[in-house]
Amino acid sequence: MSYSHKHVKKVLEQIEKVKSIEAYTQQIAPLTQEEIDKLDRKSFNGSATTEGLEARLSFLAEQGVSVDRLTSHSGLESPESLKGNIENFIGMAQVPVGLAGPLLVKGSEAQGDFFVPLATTEGALIASYNRGMKACRLSGGITSVCLIEGVQRSPFFKFDNLGTVGLFIKWVYQRMDKFTEIVESTSRFAKLNDLKANIEGNSVILTFEYLTGDAAGQNMVTICTDKICKYILANFDITPLEWYIEGNYSGDKKATTLSFVNVRGKKVTAEIVIPRFVVDKVLKTTPEKIAQYWQSSTLGVIQSGAIGAQGHVANGLTALFIACGQDVACISESSIGLTRMETNTDGDLYVSVTLPSLIVGTVGGGTSLATQKECLEMLGCAGANKAKKFAEICCAVALAGEISIASAMSADHFTNAHQKLGRK
Amino acid sequence: MSYSHKHVKKVLEQIEKVKSIEAYTQQIAPLTQEEIDKLDRKSFNGSATTEGLEARLSFLAEQGVSVDRLTSHSGLESPESLKGNIENFIGMAQVPVGLAGPLLVKGSEAQGDFFVPLATTEGALIASYNRGMKACRLSGGITSVCLIEGVQRSPFFKFDNLGTVGLFIKWVYQRMDKFTEIVESTSRFAKLNDLKANIEGNSVILTFEYLTGDAAGQNMVTICTDKICKYILANFDITPLEWYIEGNYSGDKKATTLSFVNVRGKKVTAEIVIPRFVVDKVLKTTPEKIAQYWQSSTLGVIQSGAIGAQGHVANGLTALFIACGQDVACISESSIGLTRMETNTDGDLYVSVTLPSLIVGTVGGGTSLATQKECLEMLGCAGANKAKKFAEICCAVALAGEISIASAMSADHFTNAHQKLGRK
Amino acid sequence: MSYSHKHVKKVLEQIEKVKSIEAYTQQIAPLTQEEIDKLDRKSFNGSATTEGLEARLSFLAEQGVSVDRLTSHSGLESPESLKGNIENFIGMAQVPVGLAGPLLVKGSEAQGDFFVPLATTEGALIASYNRGMKACRLSGGITSVCLIEGVQRSPFFKFDNLGTVGLFIKWVYQRMDKFTEIVESTSRFAKLNDLKANIEGNSVILTFEYLTGDAAGQNMVTICTDKICKYILANFDITPLEWYIEGNYSGDKKATTLSFVNVRGKKVTAEIVIPRFVVDKVLKTTPEKIAQYWQSSTLGVIQSGAIGAQGHVANGLTALFIACGQDVACISESSIGLTRMETNTDGDLYVSVTLPSLIVGTVGGGTSLATQKECLEMLGCAGANKAKKFAEICCAVALAGEISIASAMSADHFTNAHQKLGRK
Amino acid sequence: MSYSHKHVKKVLEQIEKVKSIEAYTQQIAPLTQEEIDKLDRKSFNGSATTEGLEARLSFLAEQGVSVDRLTSHSGLESPESLKGNIENFIGMAQVPVGLAGPLLVKGSEAQGDFFVPLATTEGALIASYNRGMKACRLSGGITSVCLIEGVQRSPFFKFDNLGTVGLFIKWVYQRMDKFTEIVESTSRFAKLNDLKANIEGNSVILTFEYLTGDAAGQNMVTICTDKICKYILANFDITPLEWYIEGNYSGDKKATTLSFVNVRGKKVTAEIVIPRFVVDKVLKTTPEKIAQYWQSSTLGVIQSGAIGAQGHVANGLTALFIACGQDVACISESSIGLTRMETNTDGDLYVSVTLPSLIVGTVGGGTSLATQKECLEMLGCAGANKAKKFAEICCAVALAGEISIASAMSADHFTNAHQKLGRK
Repeated sequence: MSYSHKHVKKVLEQIEKVKSIEAYTQQIAPLTQEEIDKLDRKSFNGSATTEGLEARLSFLAEQGVSVDRLTSHSGLESPESLKGNIENFIGMAQVPVGLAGPLLVKGSEAQGDFFVPLATTEGALIASYNRGMKACRLSGGITSVCLIEGVQRSPFFKFDNLGTVGLFIKWVYQRMDKFTEIVESTSRFAKLNDLKANIEGNSVILTFEYLTGDAAGQNMVTICTDKICKYILANFDITPLEWYIEGNYSGDKKATTLSFVNVRGKKVTAEIVIPRFVVDKVLKTTPEKIAQYWQSSTLGVIQSGAIGAQGHVANGLTALFIACGQDVACISESSIGLTRMETNTDGDLYVSVTLPSLIVGTVGGGTSLATQKECLEMLGCAGANKAKKFAEICCAVALAGEISIASAMSADHFTNAHQKLGRK
Repeated sequence: MSYSHKHVKKVLEQIEKVKSIEAYTQQIAPLTQEEIDKLDRKSFNGSATTEGLEARLSFLAEQGVSVDRLTSHSGLESPESLKGNIENFIGMAQVPVGLAGPLLVKGSEAQGDFFVPLATTEGALIASYNRGMKACRLSGGITSVCLIEGVQRSPFFKFDNLGTVGLFIKWVYQRMDKFTEIVESTSRFAKLNDLKANIEGNSVILTFEYLTGDAAGQNMVTICTDKICKYILANFDITPLEWYIEGNYSGDKKATTLSFVNVRGKKVTAEIVIPRFVVDKVLKTTPEKIAQYWQSSTLGVIQSGAIGAQGHVANGLTALFIACGQDVACISESSIGLTRMETNTDGDLYVSVTLPSLIVGTVGGGTSLATQKECLEMLGCAGANKAKKFAEICCAVALAGEISIASAMSADHFTNAHQKLGRK
Repeated sequence: MSYSHKHVKKVLEQIEKVKSIEAYTQQIAPLTQEEIDKLDRKSFNGSATTEGLEARLSFLAEQGVSVDRLTSHSGLESPESLKGNIENFIGMAQVPVGLAGPLLVKGSEAQGDFFVPLATTEGALIASYNRGMKACRLSGGITSVCLIEGVQRSPFFKFDNLGTVGLFIKWVYQRMDKFTEIVESTSRFAKLNDLKANIEGNSVILTFEYLTGDAAGQNMVTICTDKICKYILANFDITPLEWYIEGNYSGDKKATTLSFVNVRGKKVTAEIVIPRFVVDKVLKTTPEKIAQYWQSSTLGVIQSGAIGAQGHVANGLTALFIACGQDVACISESSIGLTRMETNTDGDLYVSVTLPSLIVGTVGGGTSLATQKECLEMLGCAGANKAKKFAEICCAVALAGEISIASAMSADHFTNAHQKLGRK
Repeated sequence: MSYSHKHVKKVLEQIEKVKSIEAYTQQIAPLTQEEIDKLDRKSFNGSATTEGLEARLSFLAEQGVSVDRLTSHSGLESPESLKGNIENFIGMAQVPVGLAGPLLVKGSEAQGDFFVPLATTEGALIASYNRGMKACRLSGGITSVCLIEGVQRSPFFKFDNLGTVGLFIKWVYQRMDKFTEIVESTSRFAKLNDLKANIEGNSVILTFEYLTGDAAGQNMVTICTDKICKYILANFDITPLEWYIEGNYSGDKKATTLSFVNVRGKKVTAEIVIPRFVVDKVLKTTPEKIAQYWQSSTLGVIQSGAIGAQGHVANGLTALFIACGQDVACISESSIGLTRMETNTDGDLYVSVTLPSLIVGTVGGGTSLATQKECLEMLGCAGANKAKKFAEICCAVALAGEISIASAMSADHFTNAHQKLGRK
């Protein structure tokens, strides 16, 4: 995230909240390993048995969590009710959902223990994330803060020459108030936040950046930007040679290195210190081994020409996105991240995960469909004023997964886990 | 894809098949627009109505395609039956599936008309892909060829110094026969295909590349490589300072620039010539406008620091992956692609899409679950000897989507489509 | 370049200047081919003969251009006079300099015909750039505009946790006036222009961006940022766990994708329309062939995982940098560019080159050494108030080279040229 | 570098040599700090004084090293003698050269102490590299091995469709013997080493990879590939729609991520262990601080979207390239690298630098010009059979520079050094 002054205030408010949360959470003694183990047995043991399922369901019922839609199916949804989500509807794909957690988060919006629904068909995934969450719970929880947000649409304009591009940009920047007005009259939620211009010869990409409330917001920013562009086309007295609503620059549905310089969607950073004894007891390795694995694996990721450097953020996020009605194709950009693992001066393990381009929403898109809404409700993230909270949970989930895979790699447990839990 | 001599033979066999297919398909007159329109009306009209759904279901029944599992749900799957796919099972996420097609493919393995199930919650997606498929059907179909394949696991070894790394690599390369033997005795499907070494000071990443039959294969290559590594550790007389089963170099679950140099999973390329009248009638634009959009949008994608250059490949692939039980997190690498659109000397539109790192399988993973298997069966892609066929369909789907979005962008229909079909 | 409102004014001033220049230059009829040919014969023919050399030297004398230092050498420079440029001095490397031009530039600062000194040992380089310049001269000259500028230093700070990072950033942003004051009292030239923060867990990179007057400015920004950091360390009441004056983020001496999002040094864009008859007569090819080559070669550059997309910008810039006393190691970032070649609606060739991270200066560094100063003087670029002018010439030189190589590639003259002019 | 079996033998031979060299060099006691200090005083003190210059020159004379051409200049070179290196010659740029070293290298080709000429105008550069070399000398020298080599030319061909591309590739691969024959009859030095094909729709990039003897080789590979292409065009019975001698894929004159996957030019890796006392006495910091700086700075370099991860490799390489008549524009690709710094189990500092795409030569290009040849001779690298040796020296120089900058950063000496030695 690169933010100038005007963004700083919001970031600071977020982080300030964390400071007070930390004071609060430090008063709650984290669960002992014994308590967690009990919880494990009660809710999660016997993973692939009917008894296990029943134990989990009754545990969730005790917690007041409904999974009615996930566990039953009263005939096919009516096509009419799916309008806006699908065309040519023919039925429902069924993806198994597993439960991971509790995930203890100390965020600016997400605070407390969360039971995380993950939809996947890949064995070992949930077991791995669950193990990471357990280590984090025993360590007092994950700090996770949504630092900043913004969704872009990047129309492209081409004129006869660079001189006209200059006139055009001048004209455009003089109409920021008009654009703000257009956005306000077009959407209840979108707020125009910034406008940048990338000149290249006789062409220019204008990047309109918006706050999109609690929606992922890609449709919203398309519609608002289109309105602005139509205004420009109707009023600027030189007709562009070419113009398009998107110049393929915004990073929509693809991994780009823009992510670390700007923000796309939400930028969230999460961190935790895992005490040596937790690394030993739960993760079966040492802080030094994990830190060393991380350093050595960074050599590989750099040589591979990846964007960012992380382990398997895509695994947890994809499973969470499917369960919670997110735009799963945005995994392309959302799974970009930077993970860090190192020993601190106390000999404990410090871990951070930063996701600079997390496209998530708690309203719109697939969020109001039956099982999707139920999954968001399990996280207390259904509806308005929940998008940042959900983003912070996403990053905490990712962090738990990063710890678990790095532990497994460092201690040579990775293959065994997959052999035991994967499809034979 | 970069292949040396030993790979060339296979590539050529694939392409040869296409030559004979083309001869065959040229004998089939492509459907006229009228015929396609009739098909449209019959199967796809009234997208969000119960009548529309019934029309589609009866159409599929006529085609002998079963959608029993997609349309009904006889209680919860038993946890036992999901072993290997999920832990801590609590229910099934339900993702709406729409039908796109027919998609006419002239591949080396995939040949004929396909009705494509896409699971998504994003309005306009299926309508867009469907429109692209219609244009392709009218144009005589998409050539799509799986050129080459390979899945990697990249263990990392560190020794005291570079000299020892030299001894190590020498020792390792002398045991290729032994490794082949180990792989043969470990998996019925995996075949060791290549071994590369990236030396960096006193460390080396060994990249073992496998053919994995019809499985996506990540577990298979982990297990085989682990066996090989255990053999190495037991027999090479110098103990490495560090070793890990994966040095974060293979590109697993992330976008890397390795994709275009090597292959990861399957490398598929697809192409089509769309006659001007089809561009006009179906896509409501001109070949020149589409070609110009493509050129201009490439300026954006380059400046954004993306890997490859494509429009929204992730959209179609993600929907197909969810429907068909693929490892959806692999969208990270699978959605990397290179799309090209240009006018040819006849004034028609030439389009190609190349996906160099498509991780797909038709056995293992989620492929045998109820609705997932049904969706694979709709494509004639369930079970053994179908992975390449499925890969060719994936690339053809991507191409249809690329045409549709570029048409919409070039003719300024993008926003309207999303306004009409997206979630209000 | 991505600039917010505050940058826009400057960009517009630059472009406005170009508008008035264009009015001016349109009054000057560009030279006819005959006139250029005569110029060629007079100044540049007989490239590798003593007669040729003498013709060129007398031509330059006529123009009032001194090359005394380039052509003679009155013993070794005194080590004392080289203080600040070299340590452990033992002599002078002699790199042959050739003359290319005239290069007709219509920039916001660079206006008129320039004779360009290029220091290289690679045969064919100057002939190629010279040919490109000839085509541009006949086409009325190259528009080249320095759009925006900024040089960064990116110190890194690490604290105990994210909460402290929040306090730190808050404290830092409240002291912008103090930092501005520190910069003013430290350097006559540097102006603090922006401050961005990239938070990652418990660490943050603060990117201080400066205007550096006519110096390349890396030393200046180091010294100013160091003063700021020392102030921070002395006054912020929490001592960071780690801090470094550069967190390896600024892009100093390396190619990064930051270039297209921000600016580093100067961002310059240049463009020209080359009439079909010039493409035919001078470049021996057609606009269509060049445009097609450019499109096809973009496929290669994308697959290679390059940053930006250009042909051989590094060739001309390196030769100009050596001749003119620039920091040649900055070729790493300066040679990043985006070239575009396409036919316009008149059937002529449109070409643009955009260099987003050109690190150049006309004072400081090697600019006051004997031959270096002479070369800058040949361009009217020695000393104060010349850096933008020099940057615009750099981009115009790059554009001439891009045209020439693309022409050669498109018409299959590339190999012959190198065979004829390269070292046997 | 990724190499298959056929490359492995050569790599191993290189590394085997290092093993025996190490045995040899371990018998030589490394110089004590006192001895080095004496050497320093004798040869390098009083950097910017005439006395210092005289001391250095007499020291070099004692060593039998001639610097006649660097220190004097008997009039202008004749243009005729520069044929093949420059067109439109007008004089000689004079770049000051400083001496760094001794650089102790234990390579497969480069063995012993080297005095390194560096041409630069940037103050502090040589002092910094010299300090790194001193630390390395006291530590017993740098292991540096040229692992593998290859220079590419990547022609592009486009046909009517993918089927024809298939026929084409088949035809091409059946003529490898013919191509080898063509190369043999075209160049005494070039050897065709590999051929790869990247298919993309109806186009294909053929990458011909060569060994180029002791020349950098770009001209050589152009000429040989052109001959092959002309043979193909004359004999393959389908004329391509387009073809170009270079599809902008080979990485010529640009930074690409191909570097770490393949080789371009030479791939060299270098390493050293610097004992704690040397870090303390010479570098004025600790192994821990350097290692920690490296880890933290890697966060920055990853977020910046750089290729590889290094500090300022471009600085030393550029200065060495200018001095030694290399193609300086190739700094674009040659300065890509991966540096690693970490503490080892003895508490000493381990450092490695890997340069995967070093384009260097000791014959051809600018290597036979007067001062350039003299500089190569200072390194014992002029003429045939010296290119690998020179490459190993390049990488060792880079490593010395990386150590020095990381030390300065870690101990907060970076700014002071530049303030003291940079241009005021």
